Amino acid sequence: MEAKTSSLILLHNATIVTMDPQSRVFRNGGIVIDEDKIKAIGQSLEILHEFSAVADQIIDLQGQVLLPGFINTHVHTSQQLGRGIADDVDLMTWLHHRIWPYESNMTEEDSYVSTLLCGIELIHSGVTCFAEAGGQHVSGMARAVDLLGLRACLVQSTMDSGQGLPESWAIRTTDDCIQSQKELYEKHHNTADGRIRIWLGLRQIMNSTDSLLLKTRDTAKQLKTGIHMHVAEIPYENQLVMDTREVGHGTVTYLEKIELLQKNLLAAHSVWVNDTEIGFLSRAGVKVSHCPAAAMRMLGFAPIKEMLDAGICVSLGTDGAPSNNRMSIVDEMYLASLINKGREVYANGTTDPTALPAETILKMATINGAESVLWDNEIGSLVVGKKVGLSAQIIFPWADMIIVNPFSWSMVPIHDCISSLVYCMRSENIISVMCNGRWIMKNQKILNVDEGEVISMAKQASSELLKRAGIRIPNRMTLL
Amino acid sequence: MEAKTSSLILLHNATIVTMDPQSRVFRNGGIVIDEDKIKAIGQSLEILHEFSAVADQIIDLQGQVLLPGFINTHVHTSQQLGRGIADDVDLMTWLHHRIWPYESNMTEEDSYVSTLLCGIELIHSGVTCFAEAGGQHVSGMARAVDLLGLRACLVQSTMDSGQGLPESWAIRTTDDCIQSQKELYEKHHNTADGRIRIWLGLRQIMNSTDSLLLKTRDTAKQLKTGIHMHVAEIPYENQLVMDTREVGHGTVTYLEKIELLQKNLLAAHSVWVNDTEIGFLSRAGVKVSHCPAAAMRMLGFAPIKEMLDAGICVSLGTDGAPSNNRMSIVDEMYLASLINKGREVYANGTTDPTALPAETILKMATINGAESVLWDNEIGSLVVGKKVGLSAQIIFPWADMIIVNPFSWSMVPIHDCISSLVYCMRSENIISVMCNGRWIMKNQKILNVDEGEVISMAKQASSELLKRAGIRIPNRMTLL
Repeated sequence: MEAKTSSLILLHNATIVTMDPQSRVFRNGGIVIDEDKIKAIGQSLEILHEFSAVADQIIDLQGQVLLPGFINTHVHTSQQLGRGIADDVDLMTWLHHRIWPYESNMTEEDSYVSTLLCGIELIHSGVTCFAEAGGQHVSGMARAVDLLGLRACLVQSTMDSGQGLPESWAIRTTDDCIQSQKELYEKHHNTADGRIRIWLGLRQIMNSTDSLLLKTRDTAKQLKTGIHMHVAEIPYENQLVMDTREVGHGTVTYLEKIELLQKNLLAAHSVWVNDTEIGFLSRAGVKVSHCPAAAMRMLGFAPIKEMLDAGICVSLGTDGAPSNNRMSIVDEMYLASLINKGREVYANGTTDPTALPAETILKMATINGAESVLWDNEIGSLVVGKKVGLSAQIIFPWADMIIVNPFSWSMVPIHDCISSLVYCMRSENIISVMCNGRWIMKNQKILNVDEGEVISMAKQASSELLKRAGIRIPNRMTLL
Repeated sequence: MEAKTSSLILLHNATIVTMDPQSRVFRNGGIVIDEDKIKAIGQSLEILHEFSAVADQIIDLQGQVLLPGFINTHVHTSQQLGRGIADDVDLMTWLHHRIWPYESNMTEEDSYVSTLLCGIELIHSGVTCFAEAGGQHVSGMARAVDLLGLRACLVQSTMDSGQGLPESWAIRTTDDCIQSQKELYEKHHNTADGRIRIWLGLRQIMNSTDSLLLKTRDTAKQLKTGIHMHVAEIPYENQLVMDTREVGHGTVTYLEKIELLQKNLLAAHSVWVNDTEIGFLSRAGVKVSHCPAAAMRMLGFAPIKEMLDAGICVSLGTDGAPSNNRMSIVDEMYLASLINKGREVYANGTTDPTALPAETILKMATINGAESVLWDNEIGSLVVGKKVGLSAQIIFPWADMIIVNPFSWSMVPIHDCISSLVYCMRSENIISVMCNGRWIMKNQKILNVDEGEVISMAKQASSELLKRAGIRIPNRMTLL
């Protein structure tokens, strides 16, 4: 990686959307980065007055927009090589004939290449931190995250039971599952300058014995880390839980019963939850990752407005490439607004264009994302110091942020700066990305890896992987 | 405009998605453009063998994808300057306090600038032809379309009644409405090398007397042109039609009764239609423009799958900037797939990931679009000659087409070329656009206008327009 040449960077003449508790927006703001931390933020003139003499580098942003980096709270980085392998097929074909054969045939190197390719797309879309949704080779992911310069909570895809699993997965015992995750934690947690954390994974309740659920809960407590789990994805899942686990509703009700609903649970999707279950999630402080595209395509409409109204911390995720195709939090912001405005038709007879306004969506992609990955003391908003806990200890947040060019045909004219970031902005408006005080993309060029090289590696690795897995995608149209 | 230097252009080594009746896709195809028409299409080797000696220009597309230009069948080009003036507000605020004041204060020059800015976004999104949804100054639009090099069906926004109209509109008589459109037809129809056609406009039934509806129907027949109308947008509209016009259901039932449902009607939105009305639309050969983003945000879920199953020609539209913000048919393709897969939840209890597959969506954006604008003999698919009518006269289609680069991080790996065009492609993958045999964008540079200049003009014009119209957008967050 590039050696660091300067220790104090001053950026000024920017619209700074801080996403702090007061929702402050500096129309002409400046910010000072000291190594990897935010040292000062304020009006450009004041920042220049105080710091220009000591700054190693002064950058005029010429009115561009500065935002905290986006946080993608549910993404299968290992599935990037499988983009397009399961479009327009039913859920059983998707799972049994495409995704499971694909994932179970991956090598550690495949995971590495897949995460590199996915990471490039994440960075171009303004993401500085993500929560991995679960793949096979955490060490491959960790290598890629380290190299790319991103921040991430990685998890192993963990299952110890279930119908129709590939042979190599079916033999895993509960203890294997827990033990291998403890080893990953030992090896990778808090590595890459603290940018990588290891969480525990639960693929979903239909692939988990009670023993796995409870041991995961207890191990996470012991390691003081989070749990990432797919929750209440389809009606069949809830039905199966009711039939086999003897509760009155679905997965969330059962997780409440066994005390798995806690502050450190990141519940992906949570589409099929009723009002009582929304109450459970809220009281327990569970975080929900809303993945609008995957929900529309595969799962259904989650009651996001109701969850937000109940005080649940809801953030945004892209899910994996075979469930969505675009791995862009920018597009998910646009989608989250649209589908949750539209969904009101079914609740109230008409859409509600006021539902999930732009400022709510921006929160979901930033500070709610940070809270969801249990990192909100240090990322998710552009502030100088956050007072934490009873002792009011001050923690200085990491410099994770993005620069947006709002002056192109895709965004002008700008009559409402905040809404334009949610409804007009496209990934092509994201110019530069900094994570942990280092630029990882500058002027739309990824700095730590060679894009062309990764693309070549990805093409070759994915075509070999599909061959190995015996996956053939039927032709559409008349190929000549 | 740039003088034409060559008459025979040969493009080869491309994946050509023809969208012809056989859905042919050439994996390594070539195409020959003679002036403004498609002269030949086939395998690269054959095309090179036959034409390389006589071609004035030979371009190797290096495996990029060639498609017919997309057709946006519902876009308010005059509303581009109003992007962001009505985000997250209820429908009445949207209409009475934002859109009507905005539109009624536009000058002819505003319309020109707005259409230029919108046209730039349309071209970047691969659009070569659009159906204007209705604005105030058709001559301003026509000037812009002529300059940009696009193809369009333009209409005047036409209303002769209704509650709460701005003063300058309220005084228009039915005869004024018809007369001014006849004059526009005389002046602009078939101008700009035949790229501009003039249609008749009906804003919507709540702003139309019966006399206007009938005279529009008859005038369109007399002029042999189309009618563009907003149809069945909200439940209130249907209710009002039932209450005041004495029919059993809404707008579509009434239009059936007065014989306005005909092959030349382009019915935008058509969200609130029942099964009987779907039957009416189908039997009459009415075309429907589906605008997924605007529908989600403002209107509701149209029964698109049912309409397609009933044989209705459904195409795609972006609607105007204040209803959507992104004017991108590329994003509308992605959305149309997602929301119509998701909508099945409400019909059948689960989403249907197989609904509206990629090939259907591509048809909606190309050949169905061409049929919707009554131009399918000449655009919408890449073919050499179409036999038309009983005499089997052969018509040679215009060279309207786009080049897509599928080799970037946003699209690789490609395991399913057709679905990747619908689900992965972003506007940034669209490299070059040709309309009527002339390049209007090359290597992502708009050729006929200066983007920067248009953006400057648009900023100034829109800020003056908002001032004139007395529109103030409330601040979000805490601006410092």
